[in-house]
Amino acid sequence: MELVKTIIKMDEIVKDKQSHQQTIGYVATMGYLHEGHLNLVKQARNDCDIVVMSIFVNPLQFGPNEDFESYPRDEERDKQLAEDAGVDYLFMPTVSEMYPTESFMKIRVEKGTDVLCGASRPGHFDGVATVVMKLFQIIEPTKAYFGLKDAQQVAIIKNMVKTFNLKLDIVACPTVREEDGLAKSSRNVYLSEKERALAPQLAMSLNEAKMLMEKGMHSRADIISFLQQKMQQISLGKTDYVDVLSFPALEAKELLKGDVIVALAYQFEKARLIDNILVTIKEEL
Amino acid sequence: MELVKTIIKMDEIVKDKQSHQQTIGYVATMGYLHEGHLNLVKQARNDCDIVVMSIFVNPLQFGPNEDFESYPRDEERDKQLAEDAGVDYLFMPTVSEMYPTESFMKIRVEKGTDVLCGASRPGHFDGVATVVMKLFQIIEPTKAYFGLKDAQQVAIIKNMVKTFNLKLDIVACPTVREEDGLAKSSRNVYLSEKERALAPQLAMSLNEAKMLMEKGMHSRADIISFLQQKMQQISLGKTDYVDVLSFPALEAKELLKGDVIVALAYQFEKARLIDNILVTIKEEL
Repeated sequence: MELVKTIIKMDEIVKDKQSHQQTIGYVATMGYLHEGHLNLVKQARNDCDIVVMSIFVNPLQFGPNEDFESYPRDEERDKQLAEDAGVDYLFMPTVSEMYPTESFMKIRVEKGTDVLCGASRPGHFDGVATVVMKLFQIIEPTKAYFGLKDAQQVAIIKNMVKTFNLKLDIVACPTVREEDGLAKSSRNVYLSEKERALAPQLAMSLNEAKMLMEKGMHSRADIISFLQQKMQQISLGKTDYVDVLSFPALEAKELLKGDVIVALAYQFEKARLIDNILVTIKEEL
Repeated sequence: MELVKTIIKMDEIVKDKQSHQQTIGYVATMGYLHEGHLNLVKQARNDCDIVVMSIFVNPLQFGPNEDFESYPRDEERDKQLAEDAGVDYLFMPTVSEMYPTESFMKIRVEKGTDVLCGASRPGHFDGVATVVMKLFQIIEPTKAYFGLKDAQQVAIIKNMVKTFNLKLDIVACPTVREEDGLAKSSRNVYLSEKERALAPQLAMSLNEAKMLMEKGMHSRADIISFLQQKMQQISLGKTDYVDVLSFPALEAKELLKGDVIVALAYQFEKARLIDNILVTIKEEL
């Protein structure tokens, strides 16, 4: 694995790979790698000639009161994990390499930001879209891999690719789960024993909602109400949000059809867990 | 010359040219071609293997009270002029080809828009940047050619290339002028005989300002005041603006240094003329 610190060096590598008709699989991360990231690398390794991972904690996507400074970092461990997973090039630019001057412009996301986790983080997805656009231009991936755990991010990046006619495929990879269905997350360690026993009910409820939808329950209000009841039964914490939206447009429409995301966030004492499921509702004949 | 109407067809052409290591020179226009556009083609023809021109009247860059509907169009004449100038591929997408759905996001230009012509056109450069980003992604030019007549547009596109790490060169081409120095413009036909006789004073005054700057007058206020006096002497119309800004950042700094643009707009009875000159101020030892 080669460690790349500068854009100019990354450009050279990309140019060389392109001249040899090699496909580039790309995994964008903010580091502190976990199984979810490594699963993306595995998928990229499987599909593409070359795998590039970036680790960049992007200040632009943190709000003024958010944890940019204290965001967890472990460079040495990340390098080892990336190499072991089969990354060929690990791109780790500094903040001044990515943002050498005060910025003249950014991408402003105008839809799909005021729902789910975006509702409480104004400007967050502008920062995500802007840095991902930059990284896509630098790395010119054939395919870029994102985890569906953060489905809103996947949706917005898919919309960006469409809006700006970017020539790459976004591969949305399924959430990695524990055996009992709980979505893997570094926050799961904050769960008490009792909470940990109840937490799989999030994924189970999403699965039940999916089955109901597949069986013909196509009213957004009905699905939301079903899930809210389910969440109330957990009793040890409280529901942050439950929503059902079109995917990737993230629009709220009462009659559900086509690709739909069912998503929720639940606040336990110390850990706020999120989970979601994608459902495709077949057109009725 | 091949006429291309769809993005998918344009993608195929670009892919084919890239696989043969051919360089692509690109001229973006809104049609109604004039000598300025053809001069850009000539330059592209000279530098690159393939020349692509686009003609697309971009609704996104027109304000609600601006002339999108009545913007002059002459497709047949444009095709003939483009072919005669040596364009290989003329990309003419429809509005629905470029904007198939309501848009999810756009580029928001945060600097350099509230000066010069941008001051009276809020949102104009967001629309320009967004469509140019799309066109760059579709056409993947090696070099893209823009006329310095619209220096603010050139500045903002240069800033966009830098902000988003786009891999292409922006070639800024000098304004095409009449023999007496008047910048060519389709609006010059609206000048009365008397006005036409006075109009070259715009370019002459810019040249005098340049000489003063090269001789050591490095105060922004002094240059502006010199030009305002010059403009007042024309007497048949009135000054819209005179400004001196860093280029391409378009910042107003009292002590002029490095690359600087001196720009003005002058309102005659029917024609509003703009002109500008770039000056590089050498660092003093």
